[in-house]
Amino acid sequence: MTDRAALSRLSLNQRTTASWSLPDAIQGSVDAGLGAIGIWREQLAEVGLDEACRLVAESGLRVSSLCRGGFFTTADPAAAEAAEINNRQAIDETAALNAATLVLVPGGLPPGDRDLQAARDRAARAIEQLVPYAHDHGVNLGIEPMNPIYAADRGVISTLAQALDIAERFDAVDVGVVVDAFHVWWEPGVEDQLLRAGERIVSYQICDWITPLPADSLLARGMMGDGHVDFPALTRAVVRAGYRGDIEVEIFNADLWAAPPDEVVDTMAKRYLDLVHPYLGGSGQ
Amino acid sequence: MTDRAALSRLSLNQRTTASWSLPDAIQGSVDAGLGAIGIWREQLAEVGLDEACRLVAESGLRVSSLCRGGFFTTADPAAAEAAEINNRQAIDETAALNAATLVLVPGGLPPGDRDLQAARDRAARAIEQLVPYAHDHGVNLGIEPMNPIYAADRGVISTLAQALDIAERFDAVDVGVVVDAFHVWWEPGVEDQLLRAGERIVSYQICDWITPLPADSLLARGMMGDGHVDFPALTRAVVRAGYRGDIEVEIFNADLWAAPPDEVVDTMAKRYLDLVHPYLGGSGQ
Repeated sequence: MTDRAALSRLSLNQRTTASWSLPDAIQGSVDAGLGAIGIWREQLAEVGLDEACRLVAESGLRVSSLCRGGFFTTADPAAAEAAEINNRQAIDETAALNAATLVLVPGGLPPGDRDLQAARDRAARAIEQLVPYAHDHGVNLGIEPMNPIYAADRGVISTLAQALDIAERFDAVDVGVVVDAFHVWWEPGVEDQLLRAGERIVSYQICDWITPLPADSLLARGMMGDGHVDFPALTRAVVRAGYRGDIEVEIFNADLWAAPPDEVVDTMAKRYLDLVHPYLGGSGQ
Repeated sequence: MTDRAALSRLSLNQRTTASWSLPDAIQGSVDAGLGAIGIWREQLAEVGLDEACRLVAESGLRVSSLCRGGFFTTADPAAAEAAEINNRQAIDETAALNAATLVLVPGGLPPGDRDLQAARDRAARAIEQLVPYAHDHGVNLGIEPMNPIYAADRGVISTLAQALDIAERFDAVDVGVVVDAFHVWWEPGVEDQLLRAGERIVSYQICDWITPLPADSLLARGMMGDGHVDFPALTRAVVRAGYRGDIEVEIFNADLWAAPPDEVVDTMAKRYLDLVHPYLGGSGQ
């Protein structure tokens, strides 16, 4: 198998190459022989949805995810309504791009609010409210459980088990889960939760947990192989659960953002070929 | 109730006032009217066990914990044996000080090792090996689940549920769990796990989860009230589970370490009276 064929399920999430515009990232992905791209709404807005759809169609890339919806933990009714409108727009974009899922990042605790359970409940209700609209537009909502390091300020849903407790209230075609190695690598029983998730796994995102943790915890992710995540084992478990979609590299890291993006893409492809691709073989592995 | 009576269950963990020697910390705790102290082995070694026991007895303080044993995730037989010898010494010290528990911090992944489950299994086996010796010395081993932020480099046991899965293999008098607010505040279902723990809760440690996370993640803890933890709710849940022991303030924080220790103790006592003490009332609360 040539490297190019071996990269057919590899996807570049735009946050890995933060300095690239959407046209840059699409071209970079095509040049590297990748099969897909994970698009961010901020860069999407810069070129507009119609132009983005045109560029994606021309490129032949799949859109493995649109990042991101969510941020709906507010207790303020007006803010909640604004979040719902914003999420409906994200659903429209996901449908237009034919993205595999709309990644939902729940959001953190509202300022001064310490009731984590209530924030989690509001997130679940916000998802429930979005489902009919998403269903009508043929869009899958992918709940992303986040490492507890972000429980206060970014994502109140902390484990794959907790994300599944919410997702399972809905049809799998409507609500899935995003499995991000950085977020779930430490979770006790994660392999059982992946089996439980099965067809609900709508995205497999990879990057590494590195130590010492970089000073800015939001940029704490590392290139696969630079940290502590056992990618062969995690990948085998994701495959065993039935996942056949793209594998998206999403790395928030200041050092990588300062490096030439095409070199970053080259490195991520090499690491993928070394640490992930050999373990995608089949459900029997 | 006078403040002094209200502080009778408050304990100063020595890491909160890192610049104080053990004699300083004992005197500072007595001066502040606290009922207990959590002792660290490094500072204990500076004065020697006999002198420490004499000082503690003179002070009238209870020893709410000895910190710490553990660090037994190594896969190297010689290192494992060294860890066991070290932990037996810690058990001897815990018995001599009549401390409520020996806090066990499991340790992280060995360098270059990415098999988290195997490291967890080794930690559980190391505990199993220590139990007879601890039992013979009347010492309780307190397993401390640690926030997943430390899963790679400090503590591979990540949730209260996971700590209980191990602790429940032994008699409650021999093996308990340490409930540290910083480590467990985010855990889905933590109140149910506290009820499950019941008499196995051998230590309740408090400090806050603050954001943005300080640059050094090992010093990322904040004074109660400065962060996101709901201390009234957590305290009520700990009380409901039956806990009647001391409440130990353990804060690793560079800013606090740079402040005058007696002022830090004063602040922690005020925050305790505000955020914790009112919720200790009884199991019916």
